[in-house]
Amino acid sequence: MNKYSIAIHGGAGTIRRETLTPEQEKSYLSALEEALDAGYKILEKNGTALDAVEAAVVSLENCPLFNAGKGSVFTADGKHEMDAAVMDGRHMTAGAVAGVAGVRNPIVLARAVMENSEHVLLSGKGAEEFARTLNLPFESEDYFYNAYRYEQWQQVKGEATTLLDHSEKKFGTVGAVALDQSGNLAAATSTGGMTNKRYGRIGDTPLIGCGTWADNRCAISCTGHGEYFIRAVAAYDIACLMKYKGCTLAEACRIVVQETLKQSGGEGGLVAVDQAGNVVLEFNSEGMYRGSIDAGGKKNVAIYRQ
Amino acid sequence: MNKYSIAIHGGAGTIRRETLTPEQEKSYLSALEEALDAGYKILEKNGTALDAVEAAVVSLENCPLFNAGKGSVFTADGKHEMDAAVMDGRHMTAGAVAGVAGVRNPIVLARAVMENSEHVLLSGKGAEEFARTLNLPFESEDYFYNAYRYEQWQQVKGEATTLLDHSEKKFGTVGAVALDQSGNLAAATSTGGMTNKRYGRIGDTPLIGCGTWADNRCAISCTGHGEYFIRAVAAYDIACLMKYKGCTLAEACRIVVQETLKQSGGEGGLVAVDQAGNVVLEFNSEGMYRGSIDAGGKKNVAIYRQ
Repeated sequence: MNKYSIAIHGGAGTIRRETLTPEQEKSYLSALEEALDAGYKILEKNGTALDAVEAAVVSLENCPLFNAGKGSVFTADGKHEMDAAVMDGRHMTAGAVAGVAGVRNPIVLARAVMENSEHVLLSGKGAEEFARTLNLPFESEDYFYNAYRYEQWQQVKGEATTLLDHSEKKFGTVGAVALDQSGNLAAATSTGGMTNKRYGRIGDTPLIGCGTWADNRCAISCTGHGEYFIRAVAAYDIACLMKYKGCTLAEACRIVVQETLKQSGGEGGLVAVDQAGNVVLEFNSEGMYRGSIDAGGKKNVAIYRQ
Repeated sequence: MNKYSIAIHGGAGTIRRETLTPEQEKSYLSALEEALDAGYKILEKNGTALDAVEAAVVSLENCPLFNAGKGSVFTADGKHEMDAAVMDGRHMTAGAVAGVAGVRNPIVLARAVMENSEHVLLSGKGAEEFARTLNLPFESEDYFYNAYRYEQWQQVKGEATTLLDHSEKKFGTVGAVALDQSGNLAAATSTGGMTNKRYGRIGDTPLIGCGTWADNRCAISCTGHGEYFIRAVAAYDIACLMKYKGCTLAEACRIVVQETLKQSGGEGGLVAVDQAGNVVLEFNSEGMYRGSIDAGGKKNVAIYRQ
């Protein structure tokens, strides 16, 4: 057995075999595999879990298929407001950004907040100003334009409705968790939020303990209907079930996703890894874009419930 | 014994007897008493814990002595950006706002987010736009102007330094927790953040599980160096120590404030109440503006460590 592993997700929700063409299915699986490989390559070379989750999330942010970075959905104002968070289990340090526009890779900015500021969470124009002081890459509106996302927005524009990524319920978020050869864990999550969102809504993604958590016991990245994950403090609840109640990672993930969240109506899922390298991909929705390379080196990518 | 109780805080930090004149001390104590009474009056008349914590926090927000609402500190841009959160333990619903300007009572807006939106956390101009749709009261810059706060800002303006409320370390936040006669709990927290803060920094106050938490087991409102409270998921950690480890409220508060936070360098404190009406006011700083009326009806207001 290796002493390292990685798991990623690209969103959860009403994803059925009949809703994707074989070509679409293939595109998603190959994008997931590419992101997994980007992270795993770092772990193999004795790199850090932090670098691995950042690389995997950057890969997903750069892919137009997922609702994060380049593929972010449109807000009610026709803009793209993105959220991201990263946590380093080794030092229990964290960085996050909420409601940022134009930043090419929000996860890179979240890491910069962790490493180059005295703060954990920066928001809006202020966070963009911070990104500029570090010369992080920005992109024009063209970069974030996507005909499919635009069409999604046109369908609900002017209405009070927000859409959870796709027209059927789908929670677009990307994320990664990893254990490295030094025994350290990390988690990273990034999202473009809800189509047609208004009022500067912030979901669970950039909230430490809700959508993202890492200590050196477990690392968790969530995707789902954010408001439910916030009220459940979903990611940190898993850590508490392990440290205070003695649950295994698998038990803790099952309790939070299949009991706590499901009972409250909170649809979605998460990926998690523990210090032994065990990987858990748990969801209560019909599907979740997901992948992992476990401590045995076995690679798996999937979309539907099997 | 009554079946209801309330506790409030007005910030923690380096507050020593020699730093306050007897007149200042008297002003603080009477403002704390006024806020306590505003909440307790509601509990006595069989009102809800939610109404009680809102009334207590509104009273503290309207008092220029505390760093919240009217008394909020200046940001690096010479503005006032306020954060607030409320959680209703009865339904485990929550509402919060981050980085709002001009809103007279951010805690009232946080409650409106909980009751009148599908979201938990709204931010910046978007949150203000939401407040305007509900005709919530706004105030001009004059209302928030305060010579003392202005002087604090002038001392550090143009520097990269942020100040934790006062020039000596003091964490300006206000908050309240309560148990009502129906056995329901609620928590509310509000702040003007850090003097000279930049980059749209968001602290622990509006983050559910970090600065604010309520279920019907316990309700918690924190004040302190926000970044440490975020990384510790401080408020929800207390709930988890109780539900998963069987700690009493007092034990859980001591562990989080005197061990977890103190060991990481996280200065501050919190007020908490459990479903039996036990009240805990715990802090690891030199002082905390605080007050409570316990289930025996005994009123207490204090500033320094006794």
